[in-house]
Amino acid sequence: MSGTRLDVLAIGDAVVDVIATATDDFLAAEGLTKGSMQVLDADGATRLYAQMRQARETSGGSAANTMAGVAALGGRAGFVGQVADDQLGEIFTHDIRALGVEFLTPPKSGGEPTGRCLILVTPDAQRTMNTFRGAAHELSADALDADQIRDAAILYLEAYLWRSAGPRAAMEEAMRIAHAAGRKVAFTLSDIACIKPHRAEMIAMLEAGAIDLLFANENEIRELADTPDRDAAIAAIQAKVPLLVATCGAEGALAVENGRAVRTPIARIGKGIVDTTGAGDLFAAGFLVGQAEGRGLEESLRMGSIAAAEVISHFGARPEADLKALVAAA
Amino acid sequence: MSGTRLDVLAIGDAVVDVIATATDDFLAAEGLTKGSMQVLDADGATRLYAQMRQARETSGGSAANTMAGVAALGGRAGFVGQVADDQLGEIFTHDIRALGVEFLTPPKSGGEPTGRCLILVTPDAQRTMNTFRGAAHELSADALDADQIRDAAILYLEAYLWRSAGPRAAMEEAMRIAHAAGRKVAFTLSDIACIKPHRAEMIAMLEAGAIDLLFANENEIRELADTPDRDAAIAAIQAKVPLLVATCGAEGALAVENGRAVRTPIARIGKGIVDTTGAGDLFAAGFLVGQAEGRGLEESLRMGSIAAAEVISHFGARPEADLKALVAAA
Repeated sequence: MSGTRLDVLAIGDAVVDVIATATDDFLAAEGLTKGSMQVLDADGATRLYAQMRQARETSGGSAANTMAGVAALGGRAGFVGQVADDQLGEIFTHDIRALGVEFLTPPKSGGEPTGRCLILVTPDAQRTMNTFRGAAHELSADALDADQIRDAAILYLEAYLWRSAGPRAAMEEAMRIAHAAGRKVAFTLSDIACIKPHRAEMIAMLEAGAIDLLFANENEIRELADTPDRDAAIAAIQAKVPLLVATCGAEGALAVENGRAVRTPIARIGKGIVDTTGAGDLFAAGFLVGQAEGRGLEESLRMGSIAAAEVISHFGARPEADLKALVAAA
Repeated sequence: MSGTRLDVLAIGDAVVDVIATATDDFLAAEGLTKGSMQVLDADGATRLYAQMRQARETSGGSAANTMAGVAALGGRAGFVGQVADDQLGEIFTHDIRALGVEFLTPPKSGGEPTGRCLILVTPDAQRTMNTFRGAAHELSADALDADQIRDAAILYLEAYLWRSAGPRAAMEEAMRIAHAAGRKVAFTLSDIACIKPHRAEMIAMLEAGAIDLLFANENEIRELADTPDRDAAIAAIQAKVPLLVATCGAEGALAVENGRAVRTPIARIGKGIVDTTGAGDLFAAGFLVGQAEGRGLEESLRMGSIAAAEVISHFGARPEADLKALVAAA
């Protein structure tokens, strides 16, 4: 591990997932696109929830899931995100701290309630996400602790939060602090809906050297490069960032560093795929811990694949098995 | 099904379960007796929660779980229980209604928060429950709807609620309304801790004919009969109630009606036992639906065994598989 106090500090949505099974007909009746993420206002969330089956609640949030995975793999992780002073905020706070993730952001009173993500899992294990962001998007630069950012080898940011001005300003400030302290900045593209309105800005960030490590899936990298050709998109984007990590569904994943590409197949764990929620989040966790431990690209990709395989073998986007043992056994 | 609008109406604790895995060492360090239920105050619940691992939240409550099972088996179920006007109350309300259970009790404002049950599941799949009752024990007779009680063939009561004066008064009133309308009253003994302080009163209720159907496990019936000999306990209690249903762990279950005993072995479903929470609750559900459908004791016991086997094959005390299909296949 590096000489810093934390391996990774993430800034992201602090939300509780509300997970229910659903039929394809239900998605169609609600006008939802399978596999996508849509943002709901409070009324929309109340209306959709009332239509959903009985649910289970587990803490979520993309970057927060990644930090849960980093901690489960033995990495030293921190998280910055905004919850409200309510019961779901208590649940989020409990769960992330119980995993050993440093979480210091104070809850907010008097504003929006803690955010939640209504997740519909269809029989094919695909997840369709419907997010009421709530307090998560009330995060401001005031919530940052500059010393905590300087104390982390990697600052990890999610594009889900990039769409709101306040959190975006906080992330831009955090990037400046991290780079001034000689730390790396990692960024995940999160979802195609996060990219289109900010494409030019994101490309400019890459070209300005603001991002050292970019995570994307195949749809996101096509969206960022504005081309339907995945390989052309990877070629275009890898030239703009020191290290690109792209997940390509069932084909596995690849890392491209200074023009050199390394690939890994997907891993399989347990009784197969139950719920794909969190696959990308946990892939990033495994890769980040591999890098923090000084492993090569191939081994880091492999750790990502194992962590992703575990999280899709059950409902919920946080690891349940002993990830360290799974990696050691592989 | 009977000529009433509902097959079963239950009165019970309205709580959300907070389920985490735990080691035997953790139970020992916290001074907890494995398999038991203890009641916590707000401070005790906060303190224990802070020590627990990351958790998942699902709606719970013993009689509420039973009604979830009745609905999942195709029965017409209703539930009466008290939640607060808060996020956990919304979760409880959503989940029970999503299952098709009629739930009309309005949430309370300004009192205790919605109750929760901190459940520790050890590697042997045993559950140890730690309940903060909160609003659940603020239930009063005012919350009853006399017509709803008269419209249900069976009124089902849990002893967990019997320990608090307000809910006990509500249940006594409900029993009077049900019997005056010619309905049956079923009662589950819930936990040995619920019996000792009320043993004489419970025996008097049985002897007065206030209970038509009594559910118990082997520990509870020994406690009620005040004897360590299970068979002697069953013999003593069955003489005081028209229908006694007793679950005896791995030995299966038996029903005794007017001196005639019928037995059933336990059923096995899926990949084995993950979490025993809800086993008794779902056993009662299967038995009640069997009775509502006019099946005999043996078939009703068998339906209880199948419903119980499903719920212990996963985390959480509410059915996840299609119980109707499981019963049809058996």
